[in-house]
Amino acid sequence: MFSHVKELQFEAKPDGPDAGFARRLQEVLGGKFGEMTVANQYLFQGWNCRLPGKYKDLLLDVGTEEMGHVEMIVTMITRLLENAPLSLSEAIADNPGGGAIFAGSNPAHFIHGGGGALPADANGVPWNGAFVTASGNLLADFQLNVAAEAQGRLQVSRLFNMTDDPGVKQLLRFLLARDTMHQNMWLAAIEQLKEDGLEEMPVPDAFPDSTEFTEEFSYTYLGFSSGTDAAQGRWASGPTPDGKGEFRNGDSPRANAPEPVLAPGDPRLYGTNPGVVGGVVNKVKSKVT
Amino acid sequence: MFSHVKELQFEAKPDGPDAGFARRLQEVLGGKFGEMTVANQYLFQGWNCRLPGKYKDLLLDVGTEEMGHVEMIVTMITRLLENAPLSLSEAIADNPGGGAIFAGSNPAHFIHGGGGALPADANGVPWNGAFVTASGNLLADFQLNVAAEAQGRLQVSRLFNMTDDPGVKQLLRFLLARDTMHQNMWLAAIEQLKEDGLEEMPVPDAFPDSTEFTEEFSYTYLGFSSGTDAAQGRWASGPTPDGKGEFRNGDSPRANAPEPVLAPGDPRLYGTNPGVVGGVVNKVKSKVT
Amino acid sequence: MFSHVKELQFEAKPDGPDAGFARRLQEVLGGKFGEMTVANQYLFQGWNCRLPGKYKDLLLDVGTEEMGHVEMIVTMITRLLENAPLSLSEAIADNPGGGAIFAGSNPAHFIHGGGGALPADANGVPWNGAFVTASGNLLADFQLNVAAEAQGRLQVSRLFNMTDDPGVKQLLRFLLARDTMHQNMWLAAIEQLKEDGLEEMPVPDAFPDSTEFTEEFSYTYLGFSSGTDAAQGRWASGPTPDGKGEFRNGDSPRANAPEPVLAPGDPRLYGTNPGVVGGVVNKVKSKVT
Amino acid sequence: MFSHVKELQFEAKPDGPDAGFARRLQEVLGGKFGEMTVANQYLFQGWNCRLPGKYKDLLLDVGTEEMGHVEMIVTMITRLLENAPLSLSEAIADNPGGGAIFAGSNPAHFIHGGGGALPADANGVPWNGAFVTASGNLLADFQLNVAAEAQGRLQVSRLFNMTDDPGVKQLLRFLLARDTMHQNMWLAAIEQLKEDGLEEMPVPDAFPDSTEFTEEFSYTYLGFSSGTDAAQGRWASGPTPDGKGEFRNGDSPRANAPEPVLAPGDPRLYGTNPGVVGGVVNKVKSKVT
Amino acid sequence: MFSHVKELQFEAKPDGPDAGFARRLQEVLGGKFGEMTVANQYLFQGWNCRLPGKYKDLLLDVGTEEMGHVEMIVTMITRLLENAPLSLSEAIADNPGGGAIFAGSNPAHFIHGGGGALPADANGVPWNGAFVTASGNLLADFQLNVAAEAQGRLQVSRLFNMTDDPGVKQLLRFLLARDTMHQNMWLAAIEQLKEDGLEEMPVPDAFPDSTEFTEEFSYTYLGFSSGTDAAQGRWASGPTPDGKGEFRNGDSPRANAPEPVLAPGDPRLYGTNPGVVGGVVNKVKSKVT
Amino acid sequence: MFSHVKELQFEAKPDGPDAGFARRLQEVLGGKFGEMTVANQYLFQGWNCRLPGKYKDLLLDVGTEEMGHVEMIVTMITRLLENAPLSLSEAIADNPGGGAIFAGSNPAHFIHGGGGALPADANGVPWNGAFVTASGNLLADFQLNVAAEAQGRLQVSRLFNMTDDPGVKQLLRFLLARDTMHQNMWLAAIEQLKEDGLEEMPVPDAFPDSTEFTEEFSYTYLGFSSGTDAAQGRWASGPTPDGKGEFRNGDSPRANAPEPVLAPGDPRLYGTNPGVVGGVVNKVKSKVT
Repeated sequence: MFSHVKELQFEAKPDGPDAGFARRLQEVLGGKFGEMTVANQYLFQGWNCRLPGKYKDLLLDVGTEEMGHVEMIVTMITRLLENAPLSLSEAIADNPGGGAIFAGSNPAHFIHGGGGALPADANGVPWNGAFVTASGNLLADFQLNVAAEAQGRLQVSRLFNMTDDPGVKQLLRFLLARDTMHQNMWLAAIEQLKEDGLEEMPVPDAFPDSTEFTEEFSYTYLGFSSGTDAAQGRWASGPTPDGKGEFRNGDSPRANAPEPVLAPGDPRLYGTNPGVVGGVVNKVKSKVT
Repeated sequence: MFSHVKELQFEAKPDGPDAGFARRLQEVLGGKFGEMTVANQYLFQGWNCRLPGKYKDLLLDVGTEEMGHVEMIVTMITRLLENAPLSLSEAIADNPGGGAIFAGSNPAHFIHGGGGALPADANGVPWNGAFVTASGNLLADFQLNVAAEAQGRLQVSRLFNMTDDPGVKQLLRFLLARDTMHQNMWLAAIEQLKEDGLEEMPVPDAFPDSTEFTEEFSYTYLGFSSGTDAAQGRWASGPTPDGKGEFRNGDSPRANAPEPVLAPGDPRLYGTNPGVVGGVVNKVKSKVT
Repeated sequence: MFSHVKELQFEAKPDGPDAGFARRLQEVLGGKFGEMTVANQYLFQGWNCRLPGKYKDLLLDVGTEEMGHVEMIVTMITRLLENAPLSLSEAIADNPGGGAIFAGSNPAHFIHGGGGALPADANGVPWNGAFVTASGNLLADFQLNVAAEAQGRLQVSRLFNMTDDPGVKQLLRFLLARDTMHQNMWLAAIEQLKEDGLEEMPVPDAFPDSTEFTEEFSYTYLGFSSGTDAAQGRWASGPTPDGKGEFRNGDSPRANAPEPVLAPGDPRLYGTNPGVVGGVVNKVKSKVT
Repeated sequence: MFSHVKELQFEAKPDGPDAGFARRLQEVLGGKFGEMTVANQYLFQGWNCRLPGKYKDLLLDVGTEEMGHVEMIVTMITRLLENAPLSLSEAIADNPGGGAIFAGSNPAHFIHGGGGALPADANGVPWNGAFVTASGNLLADFQLNVAAEAQGRLQVSRLFNMTDDPGVKQLLRFLLARDTMHQNMWLAAIEQLKEDGLEEMPVPDAFPDSTEFTEEFSYTYLGFSSGTDAAQGRWASGPTPDGKGEFRNGDSPRANAPEPVLAPGDPRLYGTNPGVVGGVVNKVKSKVT
Repeated sequence: MFSHVKELQFEAKPDGPDAGFARRLQEVLGGKFGEMTVANQYLFQGWNCRLPGKYKDLLLDVGTEEMGHVEMIVTMITRLLENAPLSLSEAIADNPGGGAIFAGSNPAHFIHGGGGALPADANGVPWNGAFVTASGNLLADFQLNVAAEAQGRLQVSRLFNMTDDPGVKQLLRFLLARDTMHQNMWLAAIEQLKEDGLEEMPVPDAFPDSTEFTEEFSYTYLGFSSGTDAAQGRWASGPTPDGKGEFRNGDSPRANAPEPVLAPGDPRLYGTNPGVVGGVVNKVKSKVT
Repeated sequence: MFSHVKELQFEAKPDGPDAGFARRLQEVLGGKFGEMTVANQYLFQGWNCRLPGKYKDLLLDVGTEEMGHVEMIVTMITRLLENAPLSLSEAIADNPGGGAIFAGSNPAHFIHGGGGALPADANGVPWNGAFVTASGNLLADFQLNVAAEAQGRLQVSRLFNMTDDPGVKQLLRFLLARDTMHQNMWLAAIEQLKEDGLEEMPVPDAFPDSTEFTEEFSYTYLGFSSGTDAAQGRWASGPTPDGKGEFRNGDSPRANAPEPVLAPGDPRLYGTNPGVVGGVVNKVKSKVT
């Protein structure tokens, strides 16, 4: 159960409106790696978590914090949308560069949102539940969480270089700091999982290794693109990070199975089927009644 | 530029048809972490990669291999769809359990695909380009690739427990083995990136730390959900995995900014605006012509 | 800023597992009128609201409550997914009706979610940000909120008739009760808006009526389908609910404008254009260099 | 069965081309509350309507009219796209402000549509069948129809303030007038439903009230966000609009159920499970064959 | 402008309910090649058509007819959904095979649609505006229309083999007949376009051939997959169907351009960039303020 | 199984950066008729093809070639994105027209893609698996392939007129040439199918004609829109292209079935139902427990 206070986690107001940057900022609100994604992802992982204790607490703590980040970014976007011109002529009347801001803004911010933020990305494509993964396997999910925070911090750092507004930059600095914490946190949580003996790489480690083709396929690098540069990397020789094997550099990849020849299809599906000999087809009209 | 041989990378045929499992297998073909995702993700990462040499080669090698995995799974699904009954009465006539297989299959496999695989997930939802990320930052992307392979291997291992068909299991074993390799490989690539001095955690490490609020926000754990279990984890004390700080356990989270009060909106957007005093609203009809 | 307690708003546990009903219950979690929609809709409306005071408070109160409903339904779904068979043979071994439950369940609940809930609807289609509207006009949005709660309560009442599990029914009763409250609440909020003089029907009432074709089009019912039953309804005669006019029943609809004839297109777009006289076309290959 | 005349319901031609406004106008064609949505929504409601007579006639009348509105907006957009420059250099050569129009237009209007309208919104996101609801319950649907017309008229009134073209404004005035009619009409239809004794609030009124927690949850306002402003509203005291109860202002919300502790998951799904005691996990590799 | 009569174009009622087939029938209503697609596609093509006369008339004639087919299929689905059991126990009580029908039905038909059709496909994925193409080039569009009618008739013929209900079969026969007509019609329209001198293959024929690499690439078959079977086809030798050239069978495909080496990226985007020499990277933290 | 060489099929580099055109070029990469669509469509058609030999070889040949086209367009887009300004002020500082390029570019190219191409269309809407059709019926699919290549060449020819960059134009010329080949090739493949006796129009020709209403509906043109222009076309008289009949021009369309009257719905779904007599409704609250 949640409760809400109207104060924000961090204070940051834009120095002025900027409908163009408001559009860009939507990416870290409603894009694939935006705050809506991490908030929902951590909460679903926490709610679905079957292991009570510190991991479940961690997921619900951080998911709840991210809901507050959603709020801060929505508030910032809404402020950036103030005083925007509604037409090109008005935009140009305001200032010479106004035409480009107008052209580069998101029309839906005004027509649909009435000057408010939307649950969508920088192109106005709606946020999507498929962005969220809660697999039940904490190591698989924590790896994904590290990646989400890394992609998220990368996006925020790019946005930082796209604006001169000190108030906006202040909010982005805060988000960068929390992304720094959260990258570290999920990496630490991965270490903790291993220390607690709960899971190791490769995920899922409970799947018995003996059923795989360990020698031939589990540790062999195969080069399907021309060039041999990749053979110089750590992934083609030496011990594997899971501590269970040695990388080997495979011969150039070869096919291990003949060309598949499919059986004829059900004639009632009217596909184009085998049965052609010398140009003669045994095509039979299906009996329909 | 690509070329194709009709032989497959690995030999595996189902012992018999199973339209129900064909639907399930679609998840690792066209789902969020299916082979279409990793094939396209690695290829886009490789094509967009501005650093020539072993990393670019690696991405294109493995992306190309994954295209061959797409092919193998399509072939398997197509074979599993053979001889499926087209109606419930036919399904029941075949065998007593046939009704459940029929009910649990994907109708589009037959109506749209004519007995062939589709670029969609286990519920028939089409594969989506948003599943692919190629950010240009190799550490962020390799972290995501580790996660994708971990989620992928997890899904294949679950599918392994959902079928008794030895031929299908043989294909899944092969995929598990390659996912083992690929998890190890991306972890090794992360180590390589660090050794080569190209990138460190937190991503992007080139963003200057001094602009963040290092003391207060970059290394502080904040517990927004009730309970203090999470404070016991490695993420709340001790050195941070990025080697740059010490985790601290924050006081219970507090708001640092007052409740935001937004400026009135443009009356031409007809939002509900401030201007109410004692129930009296200064509502002015906008001048329109 | 949000905080979370791990206790739930209401106690309800299923008496037993039911993967088939777990799939159905997803509709009120991640469907168009599910709890994710109302939670996000009210929160975005509240955050974007430019009118401080009781309306903003209302929106944030209820949006926050709905986040707790998301949590309760996720928890219920996760419990309903316990002990589900992973294959048809196992399902039938359990009990004779097990095949149908297996066939009617959502495979992604297991392959992707590992036995946990997903942010998706009853068919596994992901939740979508376009489900959320926060227009800035409170009357337009409160009307939408009434509708969302009506559709939501309707769906819950249908689900109530689809299960015999007393624990599930108990949760549904709670949701029905809150939907009753919320329908009443948004209706009351509409009355309040009118009393406060903030907005009237038709939305937006600040748009000046004189610019519309009041006599001819604003209050005239037009029957475009055969039959005259509709002319008997309250919408074809008598005072209009906005208190500003009288409905009239239009003559049978007629076109007021000639067939549109479009100008030729830019030949560089290679559309098929006018310029045909007596079968002779003046087609000119565009000059390209 | 439908028939079509080529004349339009209302005459309106733009005074000149404007590719930028053409993009914006798409919102009321193919956006969530555009004409495609209401046309399809009313037709599906009518076709699915199991109650013959005036309601079914109403739905089919208005749905058919909206198809003609789709046509008028498509025609307007197509005309607005005429003579648009195909490149920035050309756009600037035409006039100094041409660059901003070019930049703010939708490239797909030209590349995909060849200078014609698309079934998509102002950002080029395709129209979606999920925008349509036909629930079978007329009161729930009429409430949604009121909301759709309110949001639609709001969007048209905003567009009215975004253009100076008299011909475009004339079309928008016509749409505003019909939206005025349609808001009134659905409100009247709601009254009619009640008069005919078919349905009352809360929807669905046939669901027996006694199964809900009437006292505790059906009429109690709960404030989950800080601040007590909302307690001043009509939704926290006084009679409820459904005429069946009295609002009461709840104590501050409290949890009524303990923290949920989930059962362990099926080990064959390889989730991270309970079974940890003092850091010792009983992890058992599942038997796979 | 449209008008509607409540009578249907063709009489067909199911002999009995079948919720399983109702789900399947959705594919030709709201799937990629369903009636919603062709209705909207032909209408958008007609409205956007800049060539007055017989082609525009044709498009609007047939698009309007297809709207009536949408209506017939909606009506059929709604009837097929009658008397469906709401739970598995009820389904089995009805008849032994009832469990499979229940399991294979679409839950949203009941929970969302209340027993009515939805604008979605056989898996419940909503219809999408991207299914519609109206390019402005009539030959390109008529080719697409032939394809849509061919895929559509194929799907209907498959559905014909999936049901034993005489009433349903009667509707499908009618649809098959109209699809026969429409395939013929669009093929005739292609011939007409050529006769009228409006367009020839390859589309767009107004694009000057001389700017292409006619000899080398415009008529040369290239075999990128192993095996030489394709070289036996009509596409590898002989005159080309556009009447402008001769097919030739290319040598085995070769690359004509060196490996692309991309320039370094903007350091402010924090991608991983060139500048590595012997493992030494010139990484410079960007100056941010 | 695939292999990859790093050289490209054709050499073309842009003369300079152009982030605006980079956005436009995405349409033929990740739009409905972009290279991702044809590559995947031909490969899925090939993999699912149950007829070994020249057709399967053809599909896999060309699908593999299109993968190389995906690569070339990705590379071109990535190069066009170089040196793009990150903010409006920077854009204007560079050159006076820079503001419009900035405004018209895709923000996700930078924020998400870090200066690289994305699997999305010109508006940033992700590529979708529903763009791909592999029906199993080669004639239906080859007709669709003709249409895809026609739409694709049309889009490329439009893009050709939207840029002055000689290097970009060179790439587009190459794509135009291959689209010329591929249109011809699929037309030839259609002829080949007929010659081989595998399939004829109308698709599927194996469905027995006698079950359709040949006289009345299979060859009759029906004019549902006003005007009789269409009756002049080849589709209203003369022999049908399938060689099996004669077109006839129908009388003006008439309904052949009475208005459908639906049975009452299940009261447990709470729809609005028949049962009203003289305003009196037999509404019974369902028994729920």
